[in-house]
Amino acid sequence: MKKLFTATMLCIAATAFAGEGMWMPQQVPQLASELQKAGMKIDPNRLADLTGDPMGAVISLGGCTASFVSPDGLVVTNHHCGYGSIQFNSTPQRDLITNGFLAKSREEELPGGPGTRVFVTTNIEDVTDRVSGKLDPKMSDVQRAKTLDQRSKMLVEECEKPGGVRCRVASFFEGAQYLRTTQMEIRDVRLVYAPALGVGDFGGEADNWMWPRHTGDFSYLRAYVGKDGKPADYSKDNVPYKPAHFLKVSTEGINPGDFVLVAGYPGRTFRYRTAAEVTSSAEYGYPTTIRYATDINNILRAAGKNNKEVELLNASRIKGNDNVLKNYTGTMDAFTKGGIIAQRQKREAELATWIAADPARAKKYAGVLDEMNRLTAEGVATRQRDTVVSWLSRSSPMLAQAQTLYRLSVERAKKDIDREGGFQERDWPRLAEAVDRARRTIEPGSDRAGLKYILDESQKLPSGQRIKAVDDAIAAAGSVDKYLDQLYGNTKIATLEQRRAMLKESTAQLDARNDSMLKLAAALLPLHLEDEQKDLQRGGAMARIRPLYMDALRGMTGGRLYPDANSTLRITFGNVEGYKPRDAVSYAPQTTVSGIVQKNTFSGEFDAPKAEIEAIKADRTKGYVDPQLNEVPVNFLSTVDTTGGNSGSPTLNAKGELVGLLFDGNYEALGSDFVVDPAVTRSIHVDAVYMLWIMDAVDGAHNLLREMSIEPKFDKSARN
Amino acid sequence: MKKLFTATMLCIAATAFAGEGMWMPQQVPQLASELQKAGMKIDPNRLADLTGDPMGAVISLGGCTASFVSPDGLVVTNHHCGYGSIQFNSTPQRDLITNGFLAKSREEELPGGPGTRVFVTTNIEDVTDRVSGKLDPKMSDVQRAKTLDQRSKMLVEECEKPGGVRCRVASFFEGAQYLRTTQMEIRDVRLVYAPALGVGDFGGEADNWMWPRHTGDFSYLRAYVGKDGKPADYSKDNVPYKPAHFLKVSTEGINPGDFVLVAGYPGRTFRYRTAAEVTSSAEYGYPTTIRYATDINNILRAAGKNNKEVELLNASRIKGNDNVLKNYTGTMDAFTKGGIIAQRQKREAELATWIAADPARAKKYAGVLDEMNRLTAEGVATRQRDTVVSWLSRSSPMLAQAQTLYRLSVERAKKDIDREGGFQERDWPRLAEAVDRARRTIEPGSDRAGLKYILDESQKLPSGQRIKAVDDAIAAAGSVDKYLDQLYGNTKIATLEQRRAMLKESTAQLDARNDSMLKLAAALLPLHLEDEQKDLQRGGAMARIRPLYMDALRGMTGGRLYPDANSTLRITFGNVEGYKPRDAVSYAPQTTVSGIVQKNTFSGEFDAPKAEIEAIKADRTKGYVDPQLNEVPVNFLSTVDTTGGNSGSPTLNAKGELVGLLFDGNYEALGSDFVVDPAVTRSIHVDAVYMLWIMDAVDGAHNLLREMSIEPKFDKSARN
Repeated sequence: MKKLFTATMLCIAATAFAGEGMWMPQQVPQLASELQKAGMKIDPNRLADLTGDPMGAVISLGGCTASFVSPDGLVVTNHHCGYGSIQFNSTPQRDLITNGFLAKSREEELPGGPGTRVFVTTNIEDVTDRVSGKLDPKMSDVQRAKTLDQRSKMLVEECEKPGGVRCRVASFFEGAQYLRTTQMEIRDVRLVYAPALGVGDFGGEADNWMWPRHTGDFSYLRAYVGKDGKPADYSKDNVPYKPAHFLKVSTEGINPGDFVLVAGYPGRTFRYRTAAEVTSSAEYGYPTTIRYATDINNILRAAGKNNKEVELLNASRIKGNDNVLKNYTGTMDAFTKGGIIAQRQKREAELATWIAADPARAKKYAGVLDEMNRLTAEGVATRQRDTVVSWLSRSSPMLAQAQTLYRLSVERAKKDIDREGGFQERDWPRLAEAVDRARRTIEPGSDRAGLKYILDESQKLPSGQRIKAVDDAIAAAGSVDKYLDQLYGNTKIATLEQRRAMLKESTAQLDARNDSMLKLAAALLPLHLEDEQKDLQRGGAMARIRPLYMDALRGMTGGRLYPDANSTLRITFGNVEGYKPRDAVSYAPQTTVSGIVQKNTFSGEFDAPKAEIEAIKADRTKGYVDPQLNEVPVNFLSTVDTTGGNSGSPTLNAKGELVGLLFDGNYEALGSDFVVDPAVTRSIHVDAVYMLWIMDAVDGAHNLLREMSIEPKFDKSARN
Repeated sequence: MKKLFTATMLCIAATAFAGEGMWMPQQVPQLASELQKAGMKIDPNRLADLTGDPMGAVISLGGCTASFVSPDGLVVTNHHCGYGSIQFNSTPQRDLITNGFLAKSREEELPGGPGTRVFVTTNIEDVTDRVSGKLDPKMSDVQRAKTLDQRSKMLVEECEKPGGVRCRVASFFEGAQYLRTTQMEIRDVRLVYAPALGVGDFGGEADNWMWPRHTGDFSYLRAYVGKDGKPADYSKDNVPYKPAHFLKVSTEGINPGDFVLVAGYPGRTFRYRTAAEVTSSAEYGYPTTIRYATDINNILRAAGKNNKEVELLNASRIKGNDNVLKNYTGTMDAFTKGGIIAQRQKREAELATWIAADPARAKKYAGVLDEMNRLTAEGVATRQRDTVVSWLSRSSPMLAQAQTLYRLSVERAKKDIDREGGFQERDWPRLAEAVDRARRTIEPGSDRAGLKYILDESQKLPSGQRIKAVDDAIAAAGSVDKYLDQLYGNTKIATLEQRRAMLKESTAQLDARNDSMLKLAAALLPLHLEDEQKDLQRGGAMARIRPLYMDALRGMTGGRLYPDANSTLRITFGNVEGYKPRDAVSYAPQTTVSGIVQKNTFSGEFDAPKAEIEAIKADRTKGYVDPQLNEVPVNFLSTVDTTGGNSGSPTLNAKGELVGLLFDGNYEALGSDFVVDPAVTRSIHVDAVYMLWIMDAVDGAHNLLREMSIEPKFDKSARN
């Protein structure tokens, strides 16, 4: 199977260069002529060398991207990526979130908090043979899926054995290729500098995904290792990590039309989903999630209305749901206006014509799309139930904890290689962290209100899709409310100490507790296992068919194909460019500090620091003024192709110097996880010039500027 | 006093031409060189000739502007200006509002309904001498105000004596000049054509004051007169009015940068108000009105929540308040961001310097601004009470009716010349119409709820500003609620027949009714009379001082001065031009039909007719496509200086041909009633090309096109 792509995958047709494409580093050399035509000055081969310059400087924070910008392990990323570390060090007495933080010396740098990690990708190797090679074509679909899973786990185990690294086997091109990535995992990461919230999150939720934007979404961390240079837990004796490479931060700024590239870890895209799959998302998945998230948020908001403590406990869940809502609503807009489904139908009709045009093709690809559609239809048949099942735990952090703890006890009894992904020994420390973290979101009253909403929904499910465990429990109790009385009256899952104890207990011990929430988790487990079995079966079938589908697509389109995002390192290229969001409206690709003054209210989400507004009004901007804009630039747009996970990614100019950080996409780009519309799909970057100006003229982070070899313009102490 | 301006007022300095300025027609010849430089091709002297071409074609509808566009009295104006006539002819069975209306022949034209008038300005004459001439400078301020008022009324009476005309004496330059206008009043006005609501009001409240805009805000009426050519009441035998002049409708369209002019009847501006006056508006008047209108609208909305009938009765009041709210909120934005008060303070400081620089000036203008500020402070001292008093009737249409009817009875007993303005014999027919019309808005439950809100407010007034009549009534009843029980339990003011009867009754007869609402009106009357006396006193003083202030301003600025808007005919000049509403955003000056498709939802406020959307999608646009936009244009922006009352004004190109209709200003221009910011102040026009395209390709109004000498492109019947 794997052979389908190995020969031709990297053979990219020389068409005009466009922003679309999250390219694997090893694909970049094939884009060379286009990139050079587009203005790139660095050797494309350098971008395929992960341990060289500049790629060696690009790192993952797990969920975000970052980069080294000094020989002493100084890391720059988004403010929202460093937020956990800022929050960890913040107290009511010393409110670093609101006021920002600057370590004037190494000694003042603060521990980043549990879970703060730097991952340096040190190797990517093709393991397709070892994952999907020599599979008996007559193997059942379930067996195929299991084999692929076990082989992948073994490859991870083998890779992580030496320690200090985190490995992963990821599927590319829908299973046509498997790559194993090795990342050094640095565990001592410290907070170095963050601007005030009114800079780092200026515009807040109101401006989230919006352009024009004026957010200084940047912060600085530092990676520390043991004296032996190896990853180590936090210790005073640790020393700054010396990266093999770090990025040069440019002071030159960018101009409209400039070539830029972004390297980072995009999370997930769905560019190769079929019309049937997208239709199901558009007609059911997205609208239902929007409805549930809206209703649950109303419940959570009502619960916190006159209770500050409840309000704070629910805040992050509400924020998470709001984020989903804006994202999904924007994507729904794109489904409707962008004609995504029509585009897929067109692609599939063209594919059918292309396949039918040649008897050899007709034979090779016979029934591929039909088979995929059949598998999709299987999922559609139970989607109402599946959605309610997933929202049981989304509506109730307490049930989610019970399910995790109960499942862990079941998986712990197995051999590590047989354990479900996420419950292997390598995952236990993070599970423990998550159990601790839940204390910040568990609020039994809101938990019950949210779960009641979903249990009520479960009672409306059609007869073929009932959830037996839930129905039985409600029937036994007499009503949803009576069942909820039992459920919340007989559980200790809300107590952190109890959860910590449960983390170590066997299934028998957990059963013996007779805890109502654990009992619900146990009752739901058979359904989960059954679903996993079905997923295996469907996954095995898809593993058989999807690569063929991709092969046909590649054949039809002439070979220029990049894989869907999967949280592995990618590079995307584009230009600084505005757009026309609607009739008679044009957006310039750059914003300026005058826009901050326009939006600023000194309150709420537009609460710029007084010092910044004063600096703008007093024109304390010398050395940072863009000659064309005649102002300090703040954010810029480009056509690079990014998605969630790219946050914090360095934006490099044609010379490979850092000119900004990617931090968002525009609202009109929300459909781009499915289809990129080049007319309106843009990424939003914070301009390095703005970062440097804030550091210099507002926050006095002159020590860091000098560490990045930039001479401050506003360091009065130096002048005297 | 009048002498101050007569010599120099029209002497306008030859500075660069700018959009600001609502010029009196007779001022235009002095602008000649600027206008010619700006591209105007018609002789500026022609614009001073009110009975010539093109000004003879520009007419007033009373509150709106319109123009003749055919030799047979065909009138084009905004859809929202013709709305009353459309509504008058609309029934649930024949919903002309929603579906639009087209008379295919003269016979099918429908009566415009009561109050629908066309006013043709036939003469403007300077009557300054007869109004403010030979006034004893020692006369008291009250006496001065009364004299000015009586002289004006006599001039009106004299003018209207021959019949068929409506006259008015208006003050210009804050009382430095008085002009008498004579308008022929055509009383038989018929509805000819209106597009569907989804064209004429596309965007509704959401797009009101907004750009980009896609509203086809146009409709057609026709003026009819008796066979003798004189104004007559509606009769089947009437004949179309033959205007001396009518506008040529251009099919050429406009381009960015084009010169345009607008002639019309702007209502009110405050460009010469002092810093103290503007401050009082900004700190009290506007915010309080916003608060009251918001709260009253919440009350009205709640009242109609589960009651369709109540909802309909309250709809127009809610719409009116919403309009005020958006206007006032936008103006408040402009107060804050546009620095209006700072601009006034600067102007006054400069004026003080200019006056102090010359002993003769210092003597002439001694104490002028101080005296104006003292008078302003007098008003400020009672502004809380005055606002509540005015909102008593705004919150309660029933009390408003009682006050009108009671006052009429009091005024009717006087000689006509002594009657308060608005209650003279010439006003009676319109008062009767208003009494009838109130049936559409009186809803006793909502009325009581609104009045309760304001009565509660009255109870919070500070001791120096109490309203005795209200306090006494509430004290006698025991509480606000008990008083409201009495008030609404013992009144017949809600009944149309009773109101019609009251309209004819004497004060004694009204008193004898013992109607609680009339009693409140009677109890409030002494306060109103007292306030009127104070207004006379302040008005008389202002009439003494303000012209001096204007004279000083004119002296300082070098003479280029236009008077504040006062609902008289004005001309304003400008160019087709977009703007930058905020950092990184640019608005093009033209919208296109593709924007209609973008906004359209086939529901609510964006409910374009299916036929229109089909015509756009099928490119049934031949002959109407703008070659630069490559689409049919819809609306455009220009820098002309307009305000409420300008609605429906013809927009003329450099050759004096009609290229559009003014129908709105942009949100950023809301502060322009006080100060024009040339960077963002724009007027919004519907493009004549769009009007013609809708008429031709969508509504088949080919008869009207031909009447305007335009050959239809989509008249299939003609082709066969």
